[in-house]
Amino acid sequence: MTRDIAHLSAVELFSPVPGESVQFFADLMAMEVVARSGDSVYLHSWDDYERFTVKVTGHHTSGIGRTWLRASSPEALQRRVRLIEQAGLGAGWSEEEPNYGPVFHFTDPDGHPFGIYWETRRYQPTPKMKPSLKNQASRFPGRGSNVRRLDHVNFLASEIPSHDHFMAEILGARKSEQIMLDDGSLAAIWCTVTDKSYDLVYTQDWTKTRGRLHHIAFATDTREDILRAADVFLEAGIHIETGPHKHAIQQTFFLYVWEPGGNRIELCNAGARLLLAPDHQVVTWTQAERAKGQAWGLKTIDTFHTHGTPPITAG
Amino acid sequence: MTRDIAHLSAVELFSPVPGESVQFFADLMAMEVVARSGDSVYLHSWDDYERFTVKVTGHHTSGIGRTWLRASSPEALQRRVRLIEQAGLGAGWSEEEPNYGPVFHFTDPDGHPFGIYWETRRYQPTPKMKPSLKNQASRFPGRGSNVRRLDHVNFLASEIPSHDHFMAEILGARKSEQIMLDDGSLAAIWCTVTDKSYDLVYTQDWTKTRGRLHHIAFATDTREDILRAADVFLEAGIHIETGPHKHAIQQTFFLYVWEPGGNRIELCNAGARLLLAPDHQVVTWTQAERAKGQAWGLKTIDTFHTHGTPPITAG
Amino acid sequence: MTRDIAHLSAVELFSPVPGESVQFFADLMAMEVVARSGDSVYLHSWDDYERFTVKVTGHHTSGIGRTWLRASSPEALQRRVRLIEQAGLGAGWSEEEPNYGPVFHFTDPDGHPFGIYWETRRYQPTPKMKPSLKNQASRFPGRGSNVRRLDHVNFLASEIPSHDHFMAEILGARKSEQIMLDDGSLAAIWCTVTDKSYDLVYTQDWTKTRGRLHHIAFATDTREDILRAADVFLEAGIHIETGPHKHAIQQTFFLYVWEPGGNRIELCNAGARLLLAPDHQVVTWTQAERAKGQAWGLKTIDTFHTHGTPPITAG
Amino acid sequence: MTRDIAHLSAVELFSPVPGESVQFFADLMAMEVVARSGDSVYLHSWDDYERFTVKVTGHHTSGIGRTWLRASSPEALQRRVRLIEQAGLGAGWSEEEPNYGPVFHFTDPDGHPFGIYWETRRYQPTPKMKPSLKNQASRFPGRGSNVRRLDHVNFLASEIPSHDHFMAEILGARKSEQIMLDDGSLAAIWCTVTDKSYDLVYTQDWTKTRGRLHHIAFATDTREDILRAADVFLEAGIHIETGPHKHAIQQTFFLYVWEPGGNRIELCNAGARLLLAPDHQVVTWTQAERAKGQAWGLKTIDTFHTHGTPPITAG
Repeated sequence: MTRDIAHLSAVELFSPVPGESVQFFADLMAMEVVARSGDSVYLHSWDDYERFTVKVTGHHTSGIGRTWLRASSPEALQRRVRLIEQAGLGAGWSEEEPNYGPVFHFTDPDGHPFGIYWETRRYQPTPKMKPSLKNQASRFPGRGSNVRRLDHVNFLASEIPSHDHFMAEILGARKSEQIMLDDGSLAAIWCTVTDKSYDLVYTQDWTKTRGRLHHIAFATDTREDILRAADVFLEAGIHIETGPHKHAIQQTFFLYVWEPGGNRIELCNAGARLLLAPDHQVVTWTQAERAKGQAWGLKTIDTFHTHGTPPITAG
Repeated sequence: MTRDIAHLSAVELFSPVPGESVQFFADLMAMEVVARSGDSVYLHSWDDYERFTVKVTGHHTSGIGRTWLRASSPEALQRRVRLIEQAGLGAGWSEEEPNYGPVFHFTDPDGHPFGIYWETRRYQPTPKMKPSLKNQASRFPGRGSNVRRLDHVNFLASEIPSHDHFMAEILGARKSEQIMLDDGSLAAIWCTVTDKSYDLVYTQDWTKTRGRLHHIAFATDTREDILRAADVFLEAGIHIETGPHKHAIQQTFFLYVWEPGGNRIELCNAGARLLLAPDHQVVTWTQAERAKGQAWGLKTIDTFHTHGTPPITAG
Repeated sequence: MTRDIAHLSAVELFSPVPGESVQFFADLMAMEVVARSGDSVYLHSWDDYERFTVKVTGHHTSGIGRTWLRASSPEALQRRVRLIEQAGLGAGWSEEEPNYGPVFHFTDPDGHPFGIYWETRRYQPTPKMKPSLKNQASRFPGRGSNVRRLDHVNFLASEIPSHDHFMAEILGARKSEQIMLDDGSLAAIWCTVTDKSYDLVYTQDWTKTRGRLHHIAFATDTREDILRAADVFLEAGIHIETGPHKHAIQQTFFLYVWEPGGNRIELCNAGARLLLAPDHQVVTWTQAERAKGQAWGLKTIDTFHTHGTPPITAG
Repeated sequence: MTRDIAHLSAVELFSPVPGESVQFFADLMAMEVVARSGDSVYLHSWDDYERFTVKVTGHHTSGIGRTWLRASSPEALQRRVRLIEQAGLGAGWSEEEPNYGPVFHFTDPDGHPFGIYWETRRYQPTPKMKPSLKNQASRFPGRGSNVRRLDHVNFLASEIPSHDHFMAEILGARKSEQIMLDDGSLAAIWCTVTDKSYDLVYTQDWTKTRGRLHHIAFATDTREDILRAADVFLEAGIHIETGPHKHAIQQTFFLYVWEPGGNRIELCNAGARLLLAPDHQVVTWTQAERAKGQAWGLKTIDTFHTHGTPPITAG
């Protein structure tokens, strides 16, 4: 069990309406705007020890930009860079991100941009944002959905097997659950680099397009936070796609909304569920099991299989 | 960051009234009796992938027996055994525990018995205990406190520094928080071998006795589970010592009760809090900060500093 | 504002599999079997001050038997009996129910059987069921869904206007919300005799059959109780029809299941919502608003409009 | 069972720091400032159908001003006015409150000012405050403690028996629970005019001063709202006096804080508990039972018996 990647750190989201997207994350997702640079705004969720959690960048479409991963040590970073370069997926070192030290840029086989780094800039609260308890990063916001931290990214990929290999062999992630269709092909894989049961997910893109996003997810402390968030989104006119309900796969309590830029955002809560077994046996869900819908019987909503970002434009 | 120990697995508790203690764990803590052997009864919490979580053993006193840790690989096991032996804390290999393969027995400096192993026996549900969702170990019990898994052990130790060294150097655990008194001495240390913010805790025993227990803790999925458990314990005549409330240290939402055998049991919930930073900076609490009590102002109850198991008998 | 009816007291449910229905209420709905008589079993929910909450009676079909209402005084009882008799809906006094004093039997226009009474037999806990806090009826069960009390009955009726009149003029209930179709006809009315926003509901039966049941509902203390209940029902193989979710109408947090006899059972939580205005203005929902589905966007499930009890048999 | 008083409507609080008190109610208690007049600011809690819930008035001390009650009909108003005048407690009709029609002013025996009225001004949301669901008064705030409505007022009184008589005979309230000391004297009475188990409470003032306040309370939809509020108060530097915990008396889940003006504010949740029995038997708690503390064993905090508003100044 390698642990060269410590955790998922932050995500860049593209938005055609960046001002509204920032307002969504700041007001409804309880994040703090910590910096602005060019077309980008950096936001911090209240218990993230690093400087930022989401970078919203103005763009002509929606979609996901870069996903950042922190290595678990300088040596671990070097090991992974070597493997990535050997796989021909490297794009070189970058110093352009002011919140990190040197970042090694690369892509997954589908072309989703990633960055991996060791040196980081810790979040330092302003006096106003200083928490009462010194073992949390920032003051508890007490507004909107109060999400605590980034939880996972669910990519759409033009095909799954190469990403299954990429996760296991290049990044050293462990696969915890998967969907295998009746023809033996993989429809989705859930992978973890931590003790959480998943951090990075790949789902087959029904359009076979490369590089798209299914959703990014943020963790709340309680299921009640998610129920409250549903009221908050309702009042704010945010499109609630499905939920609150509980997934059968991974058993996550979930709520899916579309932020104003069009990207799907999940609020999730796993309770006390962790994947602690070092020799975890992958749980495989069949086509028939997937068709049953969610844990308590909710049918999976159609748009879950038709909405990805950026949207596919007729050519 | 070594990860040679995958997780805390199980704990043996001594009880002068083992039948009542077993009933406490089975009825109120929602565990399943999976085996009986001699004076011992094995119980399984509903989402533990291994065979058992608690072993209750009849004894003339209360207290903690052996604490089991699972290594993260066969090699990791060998590495740790070597370090333990070099430290002169080893007690040899044992095959006496039918739920594990070979277990290496050792003690911490205070003499608390431990076991570390790689091979394990997975929990296999009987038809009646088979869960509806195949990614959980056992059927959800729906009774009492519904604790999901063992969370941590908090030992009392005659002195802390040797255990601070033992945790860091022999077991490779990371220290996340600590209490340092005004004279510079450590009063308590919280250590983790996972992404949870603590798994093993040492608190200075006010009597300077060796080998005692402060409490063992079980994780619930929600804070509401803990509030409901308080009603359940009230009705069952179980002594509620303190809580529900939220610790300042580690921010855990807690409830402490004494099981019929006298051992202190905590129900705890951490929300979505994890310790993901690979270079986490230890949080040090001062004597004055400790004196402030819990997060929301509850004063620490006196018995928290006078009740340990086994009790000290006048000599 | 008359208050001649104090509250909804209890309901008789018919079941073709009464043993399984009783087990559902006892094990999963946390009720206590307090008496058996002939084909009937009486069950008590933990904070009901009267002797029983549900009477399960073996029958060749599912469906609802009698609904009991307690008058607010002996004089109130006489007033209502006079009005019922004047309306030609009376069926005379009965002493057959051992848990009440004299009960006046009557029906609504559709023929659903009712009973109204003043004298009652209070629940007296056995030593084993005695609560720790003397201001609750019975020991807190700590199992299954832990429903606290009966909340409301939702009848299907062959037509609504006569029941609208019956509720307002004969029983003196207040209407809080209603659905009015585009043609001006009423599709459903929610009526209250207490400060709760509804106790008795009439929904247009799509088959125009008389005397059927849509569902009966039980209140939980928290929404978390309902989320937990969903897991409990999943494990027990109980059909979860829809939810957990929040209704737009009345804003109730809900879960609908079918008990083994086929009757639809709701678990509901209203939070701190009460209808305290003595001059409450009826909230009218349009056909278009109803079509929008539930509060957070869940589409109303088809069976909600096709499943009533007893089922309609082809003739 | 008379029901001449429909409900407790609103409370005036005095504050020596009215700006800070208003900020407390607006930011942390999620209320909307709806009007300002002279030294007073009117605030509205999100599901109150009337215009205002709290009136904060600048004053040289803390304490409670007027408590408003709404009659259940014009006739009910006349009946109560007659009884009040007969008791010599009337102070005449007033038109000074712009949010109500004519208000009859009176006091309880201790001199706490009250007003009773029938005509009221309903809350009308501005476009920005318009709720998505038309069956709630105002937009769900999604900030701070999200209290839904005023729940009860707990007065301190120089002696209890005259208020016991006042509640029962003049206002027609029902007593649900009480504390009776070993010498047979009443230490506190809990009275209700609704189906809630209490709306108006009198506690013996240990200083025998007349006209003081113990606390006013606001209801949240869930216990989780109260746990979240504790974090919000912690961050805002609000003094948390005691809780969250569950009262034995009335079983309310509670949190007590002191607003910046010094008045004690409770957040409370009763779950699904209602007092529906028309012939409810008063629950009497003894001195010994009171000494046991709260439901789950928390000792009653000393300041609960020493802090009232306004404070007693040495003379």
